[in-house]
Amino acid sequence: MTTNTKPEASPGIREFTVRRFRGTTITAKPDDVAIEQPLEIRIIISVDGKLVDHSISITMRTPGDDSKLAVGFLVTEGIIRDRDDVVATRVCRSGSVVRVKLRPGLQIDLDRLQRHFYTTSSCGVCGKASIEAVSVQIQTPLHDGVPTIPADLIGQLPQRLRDSQSLFDRTGGLHASGLFDRTGRLLAVEEDVGRHNALDKLIGGQWLDDISVVADSVLVLSGRISFELVQKALVVGIPVVIAVGAPSSLAIELAQRHDMTLVGFAKPDGFNVYHDCGRIV
Amino acid sequence: MTTNTKPEASPGIREFTVRRFRGTTITAKPDDVAIEQPLEIRIIISVDGKLVDHSISITMRTPGDDSKLAVGFLVTEGIIRDRDDVVATRVCRSGSVVRVKLRPGLQIDLDRLQRHFYTTSSCGVCGKASIEAVSVQIQTPLHDGVPTIPADLIGQLPQRLRDSQSLFDRTGGLHASGLFDRTGRLLAVEEDVGRHNALDKLIGGQWLDDISVVADSVLVLSGRISFELVQKALVVGIPVVIAVGAPSSLAIELAQRHDMTLVGFAKPDGFNVYHDCGRIV
Repeated sequence: MTTNTKPEASPGIREFTVRRFRGTTITAKPDDVAIEQPLEIRIIISVDGKLVDHSISITMRTPGDDSKLAVGFLVTEGIIRDRDDVVATRVCRSGSVVRVKLRPGLQIDLDRLQRHFYTTSSCGVCGKASIEAVSVQIQTPLHDGVPTIPADLIGQLPQRLRDSQSLFDRTGGLHASGLFDRTGRLLAVEEDVGRHNALDKLIGGQWLDDISVVADSVLVLSGRISFELVQKALVVGIPVVIAVGAPSSLAIELAQRHDMTLVGFAKPDGFNVYHDCGRIV
Repeated sequence: MTTNTKPEASPGIREFTVRRFRGTTITAKPDDVAIEQPLEIRIIISVDGKLVDHSISITMRTPGDDSKLAVGFLVTEGIIRDRDDVVATRVCRSGSVVRVKLRPGLQIDLDRLQRHFYTTSSCGVCGKASIEAVSVQIQTPLHDGVPTIPADLIGQLPQRLRDSQSLFDRTGGLHASGLFDRTGRLLAVEEDVGRHNALDKLIGGQWLDDISVVADSVLVLSGRISFELVQKALVVGIPVVIAVGAPSSLAIELAQRHDMTLVGFAKPDGFNVYHDCGRIV
């Protein structure tokens, strides 16, 4: 018999061990992280009397309400309109595919769907066959311990990023990506309504200017850290990512696999380290 | 000769008139809003000796660094790898299309790209031919003045949403969408790493349960308001959207066009109204 004082298990949460830096104190402890995982939404429809199982979208989501998510997506994308359009929903055993069976006779323009749904910078991962398919793009391994970043600098970087955001000051509504050198000097900053766009602008600017600096640089993000942001940073070899917000489970896993230093909840009084590789000194 | 004391004009900002509610005081004044606009990224490549102009992606972005954005997107998606792959970039006169001319002989698998890039819930608007194409999906007009919401309730709703977020408490890293009735009673809440997923889950849940309640409901969002979120709400006839964060320019324009009540920066001491239609009393 066990007594369980832990919070109820949730399909949307996974525990990771993090190192919490608070002043000069470092403690390792388990931390709850929101799960981010790909879900493929498929529809089953009758075409010329035959059942067809058709892929509609792949989205990075937190598991737990996949049938609702799939139906809501089909509704808000205008693919279905009436309650009777849905016959049944079923999530496959692995939890990575949800199928929505639509009523026989429902007219769906599959060609239009195929043309309609291609991607944006806010979801570069989507539509890729698998996480593996993304990771193979990352061809240049990072070097452990390069660059080294003083722990007491990390907590200051979000404010330096914030100070450089000219549009945010006026609108209160923009994400930012900033590139800093190992001493905390700002190299470049970009803003956008989409956080993935802000990072693409930053990387594109360096790429057109001098991409060689990124291997020795620190990326600072104004928000949360998704898988997609870590992946974009890894493709160009950025070794350190520091964010104001929380990382997702998949962001941490990708950082671990490629030995990227990943820091979340960065504030003046401390930060959480999800993966390190000897770069924080 | 004019003297200009206004901040420098920016391609990323547009001015809207908002009504600021602070306690019992209401003032109308101009407010800077971050622009959100679709950008199509196209590549020009040589295929069998002929130049082909090919659409790669449509993204909702803040204008201003479109060439950087396009090149960064191509780099981080693994479509180009070397500096020499890019011959030139050009933004069309309307600002809605950027073309990246790639070096002759560069091998690009167009079929793979076509298969690869389809959409996710975090970017339902993407890949649609135009804003008009989205708006036609919205078939049911909203009724002016229905429901009516007391002004003093609005500032309380974000905290009620926050109190209902079970996963956020443990992870600090999830978006939420909550549906409330006109008296401020929570009807449903969903959380996700993606804000569009949270809204799709919420709408899908209501759709499977009782979609009829949404026409008399208030949607509360934990973050910023994008075009896409307003569009999803309009498709199912939600008349009032209240958010903790800022709306984008296109979110406001869509709310205005369909007479949705749109409130941003909602806090206990006040909020900003971007469009109303007689629902706030």
